[in-house]
Amino acid sequence: MVGHSFMGAVHSHAWRSAHRFFDLPMVPHLAVLGGRDLGRTKAAAAKFGWASVQTDWRELVNSPDVQVVDICTPGDSHCEIALAALAAGKHVLCEKPLANNVAEAEQMAAAAKEAAGRGVRSMVAFNYRRVPAIAYARKLIEDGRIGTVRHVRAVYLQDWLSDEQAPMTWRLRKDKAGSGALGDLGAHIVDATQFLVGDLLTGVTAVTNTFVNQRPAEDGGVDDVTVDDAALFLGRFANGAVASYEATRFALGRKNGMRVEINGSRGSLAFDFESMNELSFFDGADGDASGFRRILVTEPTHPYVGAWWPPGHLLGYEHTFTHEVVDFVRAIADGVDPAPSFADGLQVQRVLEAVEHSATEGSKWTDVPGGQA
Amino acid sequence: MVGHSFMGAVHSHAWRSAHRFFDLPMVPHLAVLGGRDLGRTKAAAAKFGWASVQTDWRELVNSPDVQVVDICTPGDSHCEIALAALAAGKHVLCEKPLANNVAEAEQMAAAAKEAAGRGVRSMVAFNYRRVPAIAYARKLIEDGRIGTVRHVRAVYLQDWLSDEQAPMTWRLRKDKAGSGALGDLGAHIVDATQFLVGDLLTGVTAVTNTFVNQRPAEDGGVDDVTVDDAALFLGRFANGAVASYEATRFALGRKNGMRVEINGSRGSLAFDFESMNELSFFDGADGDASGFRRILVTEPTHPYVGAWWPPGHLLGYEHTFTHEVVDFVRAIADGVDPAPSFADGLQVQRVLEAVEHSATEGSKWTDVPGGQA
Amino acid sequence: MVGHSFMGAVHSHAWRSAHRFFDLPMVPHLAVLGGRDLGRTKAAAAKFGWASVQTDWRELVNSPDVQVVDICTPGDSHCEIALAALAAGKHVLCEKPLANNVAEAEQMAAAAKEAAGRGVRSMVAFNYRRVPAIAYARKLIEDGRIGTVRHVRAVYLQDWLSDEQAPMTWRLRKDKAGSGALGDLGAHIVDATQFLVGDLLTGVTAVTNTFVNQRPAEDGGVDDVTVDDAALFLGRFANGAVASYEATRFALGRKNGMRVEINGSRGSLAFDFESMNELSFFDGADGDASGFRRILVTEPTHPYVGAWWPPGHLLGYEHTFTHEVVDFVRAIADGVDPAPSFADGLQVQRVLEAVEHSATEGSKWTDVPGGQA
Amino acid sequence: MVGHSFMGAVHSHAWRSAHRFFDLPMVPHLAVLGGRDLGRTKAAAAKFGWASVQTDWRELVNSPDVQVVDICTPGDSHCEIALAALAAGKHVLCEKPLANNVAEAEQMAAAAKEAAGRGVRSMVAFNYRRVPAIAYARKLIEDGRIGTVRHVRAVYLQDWLSDEQAPMTWRLRKDKAGSGALGDLGAHIVDATQFLVGDLLTGVTAVTNTFVNQRPAEDGGVDDVTVDDAALFLGRFANGAVASYEATRFALGRKNGMRVEINGSRGSLAFDFESMNELSFFDGADGDASGFRRILVTEPTHPYVGAWWPPGHLLGYEHTFTHEVVDFVRAIADGVDPAPSFADGLQVQRVLEAVEHSATEGSKWTDVPGGQA
Repeated sequence: MVGHSFMGAVHSHAWRSAHRFFDLPMVPHLAVLGGRDLGRTKAAAAKFGWASVQTDWRELVNSPDVQVVDICTPGDSHCEIALAALAAGKHVLCEKPLANNVAEAEQMAAAAKEAAGRGVRSMVAFNYRRVPAIAYARKLIEDGRIGTVRHVRAVYLQDWLSDEQAPMTWRLRKDKAGSGALGDLGAHIVDATQFLVGDLLTGVTAVTNTFVNQRPAEDGGVDDVTVDDAALFLGRFANGAVASYEATRFALGRKNGMRVEINGSRGSLAFDFESMNELSFFDGADGDASGFRRILVTEPTHPYVGAWWPPGHLLGYEHTFTHEVVDFVRAIADGVDPAPSFADGLQVQRVLEAVEHSATEGSKWTDVPGGQA
Repeated sequence: MVGHSFMGAVHSHAWRSAHRFFDLPMVPHLAVLGGRDLGRTKAAAAKFGWASVQTDWRELVNSPDVQVVDICTPGDSHCEIALAALAAGKHVLCEKPLANNVAEAEQMAAAAKEAAGRGVRSMVAFNYRRVPAIAYARKLIEDGRIGTVRHVRAVYLQDWLSDEQAPMTWRLRKDKAGSGALGDLGAHIVDATQFLVGDLLTGVTAVTNTFVNQRPAEDGGVDDVTVDDAALFLGRFANGAVASYEATRFALGRKNGMRVEINGSRGSLAFDFESMNELSFFDGADGDASGFRRILVTEPTHPYVGAWWPPGHLLGYEHTFTHEVVDFVRAIADGVDPAPSFADGLQVQRVLEAVEHSATEGSKWTDVPGGQA
Repeated sequence: MVGHSFMGAVHSHAWRSAHRFFDLPMVPHLAVLGGRDLGRTKAAAAKFGWASVQTDWRELVNSPDVQVVDICTPGDSHCEIALAALAAGKHVLCEKPLANNVAEAEQMAAAAKEAAGRGVRSMVAFNYRRVPAIAYARKLIEDGRIGTVRHVRAVYLQDWLSDEQAPMTWRLRKDKAGSGALGDLGAHIVDATQFLVGDLLTGVTAVTNTFVNQRPAEDGGVDDVTVDDAALFLGRFANGAVASYEATRFALGRKNGMRVEINGSRGSLAFDFESMNELSFFDGADGDASGFRRILVTEPTHPYVGAWWPPGHLLGYEHTFTHEVVDFVRAIADGVDPAPSFADGLQVQRVLEAVEHSATEGSKWTDVPGGQA
Repeated sequence: MVGHSFMGAVHSHAWRSAHRFFDLPMVPHLAVLGGRDLGRTKAAAAKFGWASVQTDWRELVNSPDVQVVDICTPGDSHCEIALAALAAGKHVLCEKPLANNVAEAEQMAAAAKEAAGRGVRSMVAFNYRRVPAIAYARKLIEDGRIGTVRHVRAVYLQDWLSDEQAPMTWRLRKDKAGSGALGDLGAHIVDATQFLVGDLLTGVTAVTNTFVNQRPAEDGGVDDVTVDDAALFLGRFANGAVASYEATRFALGRKNGMRVEINGSRGSLAFDFESMNELSFFDGADGDASGFRRILVTEPTHPYVGAWWPPGHLLGYEHTFTHEVVDFVRAIADGVDPAPSFADGLQVQRVLEAVEHSATEGSKWTDVPGGQA
C-alpha cells in the first residue's frame, strides 16, 4: 500500500479484517507500506500492522513480496504509480477519483485493459457501492422494483470549510487534488448514481463556486485556494432521466450528507450516508398503505450483512472498505475483472471534466463523451 | 372572488374564518362569487358561503358591493381581471403565478403601482410565505442567526402525473397554465427562497423535461401535453449564494414535498412542507452539542401561531390562506402595500422566463432582468 | 354549547365549518352559547359566531331553540349538565373525560342509555379517534393487517408544567379536574388504544407522581397542586396483549407527544400526534424490503380526507373536531348511536380509577370492572 | 477468552483492533480461546485470530500465558469461571448480565472486591455505556445540561421471536439464560439508564409475559419456553424521578430498538440504538428556537470518536466493544478499577430480581435492595 493517512488507515483495517468475517480464498498479508518520510511511515506501519516499509514507491511496486498494490496517495500520483504497478504485474486497487484529469485516466484505463489480458486485475475504490444499503438499492432497481428511472437527485454535503479560518490543505490545491468538492465528493455521487441507475450521464450543465479564496497557510501566511468549494450540476441520463447534483464543503451542519433520491415509474428510493444503515423505499404497489419504507439494511439477506452482526446492529463507514477488499480479493482469485473498473473511473472523470468545462463556459450544455453509447 | 375550484374552496374558508381567530379591523363579507357556469357557481356559493353569484366577471369587479377582488382562476385570465379590478378601484388578491408570461405580469405590476397611488392595494398569493415555519425562518435569517447565505437548495416534488394514464387537465396546456411544474410549483420555491434569503436571483441555467407527451382526453382520445413535467435549474443570488431548484410532478411517493434548505456562514435551515409545522435549524454556535434542531413552530411566540391552539397542536395547509387574508385585510385598513406585491410576482415571472429561455437554449446561463440591481 | 374557552373555540369552529366541506343531512346552527360571565360570554359569542348567549346553563339546555348540547366545561359540571340535557331530549356531545369519577360517569351512561331509547343521542368527545391517521390505523387493524396485537405502548407527553413557576390553574385542582395528567392526557391514550385494538384493558398497575406540590396562585400567594403531574401504568388487554402507558406534563421539549405504538403478529403501527398526518406501518409481509412505511394519511381514500385538500396538504388539530361534528350529526340524522358512547366514556373512567387505586395501593394489580367481559 | 459464538466474534475483533486506533499502554495478545468442542473451537480460533485453544476452561484460566480472562459464555457459567479466574489472579471481563441470579452475582462481586485488593481488575461488559452517543449523553447530564432528571423511559425492542415458529434456543431456557428478554435486553436498559442518570432504582412494579410457550426443538419435537418473552416495569429513582421500562422480542419491525428518553428540568435527551450515532438533545435554554437537536455524535471532541474517522463517518455496533477493551486495558495499566464493576452488575441483577418478584406477586411494589442508599 502506498500512502498512510486517512485512506491508509481505513484501507489497512479492511485488509486486516476482511478474512475475519468473510470466507476469502486467500488471506491478505500486509507486506509493505510505502511513504515518503521513513520515520512517519514506520510509525504508521507499526500502528496499522504492516510488515515492512518502503520510501520509494517504485521499489514497492516491484517488490517480489507484493502481489497487490493499493494506492492511497493524493490524485496527482495515481497515474504514475498505477501504470508502474500494472506493468510489474501487480493487481491494483486505486483510490478515487481515478486521476486528476481525463488524460491520465485514459492512460490508466488503457493500461488496465492491457493488464487484464495478462490476468492482472484493477479496481477503482468507489467504496460507496459497497454500502449495504446502496448495494441493496441497486438490487431493487435491477429487479425492476422502481420501474423506469425518471429523476435522480444527489447531493454530497460537508461543512469542514465553512469556517473561513479553516487552514489550507493539499485538498484545496488544484495541482495536487485536481479539483475541490467536485472530485472529492462529486465523484462519489456521480459513480453511485450511475451504478444505481445502471446507466450513464450523457451531458451536464454546471455552476461552480469558491467562497473563500485564501486560507491560512502552515507558514503563518495565506495560500490561494485554487479549487472549487462547491459544484452544482444538472444532467441527463441516456435513458431519459433528468438529474441534479451538488457537492459542497460549505453546508454548515451537514457532516457527511451524501444523499441520493431516485424516482421511478413504479417506486422511489432515498438514501443518506449520515444514516447509512437505512434505505427508504416507496413501492407504488402498496396502495392506500403506501409510504416510504425505512428499511434497516441489516438483515442477513441484505448484501454483505450476513457476515456481520444480527439485525439492527449497525455497520459503519469502515465496513465499506472491508467489502471492497472482499470483492477485490475474490475477483482476483476467480480470475474475473472487478467493478468498478478503471474504465468506470475514466468515465466518471469525463463527467467531472464536462462539469468543469460547462462551468467555465457560461454553464452551457456539455456532452459527456461515451455517455451516449 | 372569481373562480371556485380548489383555490376557491380554500380562499373561501380563509375569508370566512380569519376574523374568528384574529382581530381584524374589518370583518370580511363574502359578497359575490364569480364563475362561468351558473349552476355550478350557485352550488359552490351555497357550499362556500357566498351571498350571491355572477357569471360575468366584469360585472363582479364593477359591482358596488365589492371592495376586494380575489382572483382564483387559471393563469391566462389573471391579467385581464386584475387590470379591470384595479381600474375599478378594487383591492386585488391574485393567485400565483401572477401571470402566464412576463408581458402580462409587467402590465399588472404597472397597474398595481398606479393603483397604489390611489390607495388601491394588491397582493399576489404566494401563501407559503405565511406558513409559520417559513415566516419564522425568515425572522431567524433577518436576525442574522445563520449569517451570510451561501447555499440554497429547493425542490418541490409531487407525483400526481407519475401514472402515465393520469388524465389531461388544463394544468398541462400551455395556453391555459403558461407552464407546467415550473409555474405551478417552481414559482412557489422561487418566491419562498427569495423571500427567505432577502435577495434576488441574478441568473439561471436550466433543464426541463416532459416525460409523458400525450394523455387521455375527456373525449376518450388523447391530448398533447404542452408544458414541462419537470424543471431543474441552478442559479446565483446577488449576494453570491449559489442555488439549486427542482420542480416536478413525477417524484413518486412525494405528495407535496416542497423542501428548502439554506446554509449560511453561521447556521443552516431546512423545511419540508410535508412536515409543515417543523423547522430544522442548525446553530453553529451550539458547539459540541450542535445538531439540527427540530423546532415545532407551534409556540405562541411564533408568527401567526398565537391566534390558534396550544403548543404541539398542529396547523394545516389552509391556515396559510387565513394568514394571507389577515395580512391583506390589515394592510388595506392600515393603508400600506402588502407583500408580496405584483412587482414581486413580476420578478418571479422573470425568473421563470429565464428558466424557460435557458432550457431552450442549451442550458446557457441566462440573466434575470432586475436581479442584478 | 356550554363553555367558551379553549374547547369552546375549537368546537365552535367545527360546528361552523363541518357543512362547508362535508355533505351533512342538516346544517348546524350556532344557536346559544352558555357561560357564567355575561360580558365574556357575549364577546366569545361574537368571536365564535353564536346567535345568542345564556348565563344559566339550565335555561340553555331547556331552550326550544336547542336540539344539541355541546358540553365544553371543566369535568366537575359534565354530569349535571348532561343529565339535564338528556332529560330535556337534547342530543349531547360531552368533552372528555366523561366525568370526574366513576359514580358520575355511571349516572351519565345510564341516562344516555335511557335517552337512546327515546332517540336522543350522546357521544363523548374523544376527538383523537377522528385523526385520519388513527382512523386509518384502526381500519388496518380491523382488516387484519397487523394480525394479533401483542404489544401496546402509549405515551402522552407535554411540558407546560416543567417550569416550577408555571402558575396554578383549575386543571391542577382535584375538585375541578378530577385528576391531572391522568384524566387530561391519560384518558386520550386509554380511549385511543382501546379503540385501535378493538379490545378492553382488564387490569393495571400504576405509579403516579406530583413533582411540584405548590404553584403561584392568582392572588400572589401559592396554591396546592392536588392532582398528579405524571401517571405511568402497565396493563393487560383481554386478548392477551400487554400495554404500557405514560401521561405527563413534565416531558420538557415534548409539546403534544401523544404517541402510540402497537406490535402485532403480522405487522406494527406507530403514531405521534406531533406528526399527526403520518402513520408508520410495518408490514411483516414485505420480506427483505420491509421497513416502517411513513404513510402520509392525506390521500382521498383515507378516512375523512376526501373532503379536504389534495395529497400532501396537511390537516391540523382542529380538523379532528370537525370530523367529530360530522359523525355526530350524521348519527343523529340516521337515528343511530354514535361512538364513542357514554358507556365507552364510563369504561375509560373505570380504567382511570383503577390506575388511581393501584397507585395508592403500592402499585398492586387492580382489575378494571367490565374489562374481562 | 471463553466462548466463541456471537459475543466471542465481536470481542475478538475488539481485542485485535483496539491498539490499531487507540494508544494503549499494552498491546493485547490473543493467547487462548476456550470452547467445549475442540474442532469448532479450533475453527473459531483460526477465524478470530487466537494463538491456541483449550477445551477445559479451568486450564485456560490458570494458564501462565493468560493475564486477562474474557467470559463470553451463557450466563449459567459466568460465576464459576469468574471466581476461578479471579482466584488465579487474572483480570476478568465478563459478559452481561453478570450472572443468572443475585446469589451468584453476590459471590462474584465479593470475589471481585477481594481481588481488587490484590490489584486484580474486573468489569462487566455493559458495552452500551461505550456507545459514543450514550457516553456523551452522560457527560451532558453530568454537566447539568438537562437539570434534575424527572422522567426516564427506556425500551429495548427486538422482534426475532415474533414468528411463532422461530426455533428454540438456549436463550429461552431459564436454566441457561436466567431469564428471557428481561436479562438479555432489560439488563442493558437498566444499566444504561442508571449510568446516564447517575442514580439507582429504588423499587419497581412489573408485568412479564410469555406469548409463545412452546417452540420447535432441534430434534423435530417441541421444547418449552421457560423464560419471559417480554418484561415491562415501572420504577422510581432515588432522586425522585419516575421511570418506565420495556424489554421484548416481539416488537415486529423493531430490530434493535434500544431507546432511552430522559426529561429533566432544564433539558431532555433521546437515543435510539437503531440510529446509534445520533443523540437528540433538547436544551430548554434555546428559547423560541428550541427543538430537539439531532446531534451526530461523530465529532473528534465526542467520547472515543477522535480515534476514528472524520465527522459524519459513522461507527457501528462493534466499536462499543473496542471502546470497552480500551477502557479495560487502560484501567489495568493504570491500576484502577474499571466501570461498570461487578458490584454494578450485582445491582442490575437485584433490579432484575425485583422485577421478577413483582411480576409473580401481582405486580406489587418491590424494593431494590441497595437502591435506597
